[in-house]
Formats: sequence, C-alpha cells, structure tokens
Amino acid sequence: MSLADVTYDAPKRRGRPATAPQDAATYQRLIRAGLVHLTERGYSAVGLDMILTHARVPKGSFYHYFPNKSAFGRAAIAAYRAYFVAKMERHLSDDSLAPLARVAAFAAAAEAGMARHGFRRGCLIGNLGQEMGALPEEFRADLIATLEDWQARLARVLQLAQNQGEISPHHNPADLAQMFWIGWEGAVLRAKLERGPAPLRLFAAQFLAQLNTTPKGDAPCSMPS
Amino acid sequence: MSLADVTYDAPKRRGRPATAPQDAATYQRLIRAGLVHLTERGYSAVGLDMILTHARVPKGSFYHYFPNKSAFGRAAIAAYRAYFVAKMERHLSDDSLAPLARVAAFAAAAEAGMARHGFRRGCLIGNLGQEMGALPEEFRADLIATLEDWQARLARVLQLAQNQGEISPHHNPADLAQMFWIGWEGAVLRAKLERGPAPLRLFAAQFLAQLNTTPKGDAPCSMPS
Repeated sequence: MSLADVTYDAPKRRGRPATAPQDAATYQRLIRAGLVHLTERGYSAVGLDMILTHARVPKGSFYHYFPNKSAFGRAAIAAYRAYFVAKMERHLSDDSLAPLARVAAFAAAAEAGMARHGFRRGCLIGNLGQEMGALPEEFRADLIATLEDWQARLARVLQLAQNQGEISPHHNPADLAQMFWIGWEGAVLRAKLERGPAPLRLFAAQFLAQLNTTPKGDAPCSMPS
Repeated sequence: MSLADVTYDAPKRRGRPATAPQDAATYQRLIRAGLVHLTERGYSAVGLDMILTHARVPKGSFYHYFPNKSAFGRAAIAAYRAYFVAKMERHLSDDSLAPLARVAAFAAAAEAGMARHGFRRGCLIGNLGQEMGALPEEFRADLIATLEDWQARLARVLQLAQNQGEISPHHNPADLAQMFWIGWEGAVLRAKLERGPAPLRLFAAQFLAQLNTTPKGDAPCSMPS
C-alpha cells in the first residue's frame, strides 16, 4: 500500500448535487499530489502551484473543494491518518503473528515504505508537527489527535503482548506506546536525513529489546520532577 | 545559558583587515536572530527580511558576511552546534554527579530551555533535519555530523555509567546514545507540538529506566533483517 492507494470520498457540498465521479477523481488527485509534496518537502516549502501542476488540476477546480491552502492541509492530514491507520492495522491486527512480531512487522513495513521512495519522504504528521510554529494553529489539534490514535492502536497490541507474557509486568503499555511514537517520529526524521534505514532499525530493535527485561533493584535514575 | 549567550568570532575575510569589533557584533546579532526564527519556524518559512528586521541589520551588511541564505544557514548550524555542546557538557562533564544523574540533569536543563520559550522553539538540528528535502544539499553532512558529535559525547558518559555498574553489561553504550538522540529529537518535536514538557519527561524516564535491567531469556522479538 502506498500513497497512490489513498482513496476516500470528497466531502459533499451543501445545496449541490452529490459530487460526480470525475469530481471525486480530481479531489483524490489533489490530495495524493499534496501528500507527495508535503511528506517530501513540508508545508511551508510547498506552494499550491506545485501541487496543482503535479495533479494537473486548474486553480479554479482546487477552489471548488478547498477555500484555501490551510483547508487543503487539514484534508491532507485526515487522508494521511486514514491511509496510515490501514497500513498499521494490517500488521497490528494480524492474528497469525504473536503481538510483538506484529509490531516488528509494522516497523519493517514502514521502513519498506520509506525505502520505496529513497528515504526522501517522511511522515506527514512528523513533518507538520516540526513545522507547527509556522502553520495555521488549527492544525495542532489534528496532529495531536492523529498521534494519540496511533498510540492507542499500538498500546492495545502491547497490552496483548503483556497478557501473553511477551512484555514484563512492570511496564505500562500506554507509556511504552507513547515512547514508541515519540521516538519513531525521530527515527523517521533521522532516516530521511541520512537517506537510509539504520535509524529505524536501531530504534525498533532497542525498543523491542527492553520489553521483556527485569529491573535490577530500583530504577537507576529518575528524572527530576 | 540561552541563545542570547551565543558568542563566537565572525570569520575573517581574505585580503581585508581583521573584522572590527562593531562588525563582530553585527555578525552575532544576525546569527542570534537567525537562531530564534529558525528554531521556531524553520528554514523554508523564514525569509531573510524577517531576520534582518529582527537583528536591525541592513541587507548590505548581511552580504558583507554571507553570500546567500544558504551560507547563513550553515553558519547558524555551526553556531548552534557549539552553543549546544557547551550546554550539554556543563552537565555531562559534571564530576559531582554520577554518570546517569548527569544525563538526567541534561534532559531537565533541555526541558527548562524549551519551557523558557513556551515550548515554541525546537532543536535547530531536528528542525532542519525534518526540512532537509527542501534545503540546500550541503546542509545534510553538517546536520549528520552535529548529531554524531552529540551522540559521541553521550556515549562517553554512558560508557562511564556502565563501568560504574549503572548500566547492565549487555547494553552497548554507542547504540544507547544513538537511540537517545533519535528519540530525543522526536520528543522535542512532540513537546513543541503539544506545547508542554510531557513528551520530554516520558522519553527520558523510559530511556533511563531500561538501562539497568536484565533480559529474560532471549530478546522477545528482533527486527526482520
């Protein structure tokens, strides 16, 4: 599954007939072109013209769907979230694998996805999160909600792993899931910077290796509060 | 120590007299203003005019020091690297603390640094790393070298912690240091997105908690190669 497989319905406009099929196709071309440029270069560096040229859509058609670039950005976030949830759940819900093997399979699939594009495209959510200081403020809640959704999905599988004895009882699956997503966005950033898979592999391996361990006495050091 | 404390010499130009004191002050104002805007909004979203206005420096003076925005960006990376190394080593080289307490003190200081600016400013290196797809290609090596320098400094302290029994022998300090910096950049990104310290605290606490543990049997799951 790649960005080219992103499909979903264009929003219906009040007081108009339902969107015609060719309209839906135009909408999807815009979103797909947007995702390509936004994951590769970010929001601030990408002008609407670049997206319109890539999608072969005239400016007038763009404004049929989106009042402005910001509304387009939010639609791109929603599309990316849905696309990525499907990608993630194909592995996290794979009952043929033990829970932690599903996590490893997801990480490997995410790596393969980056490799297909020469590690030039990152995660839309991480890209926009990093740029947030220069973005429309209404993006913030969308980005946080997306990450929390992904974390909740991972936490469910980690809880299952703990129930089955793959993760030590002293761990908190929700904290682990948050740690994974915090670090994974950093790993995607670094993989894009280095143009290679090493940061993704190192982070996933270190994350998984810590799960079935026993603390020796007290925690060695805690953060000052 | 804050960005306002960044000081270092302007580069000397061949065939001219050594830079006069007022020139050095201008150079430093430019770099400081650049760091403020680049850490808050990123490279693509920040125009030279914004930096010149902030620094109260006319465009002509800018070109006395920098042939273009790209050269300015690289000088900002070098300044930030030096600034951050000093900040880091104040804690990592603090012999009055046990090695892992130094790491925790560094994380707390980095959090305090973000808190001072309402969690609006991230790490210049993480910001630019994320934007790399839209940046001058020559930034890439500078950014990677900076992260590798920071990792090496952390690895030395983690090695010391292992020698003193704070970290289990099965860990590899260099891998741990890389995992920390991969994840920490993700935590800074997330803290900026959420405008709060929770991601930094969670990541640091989870990272430190795993260090003095014993694996139960084999690693629970390894990454497919």
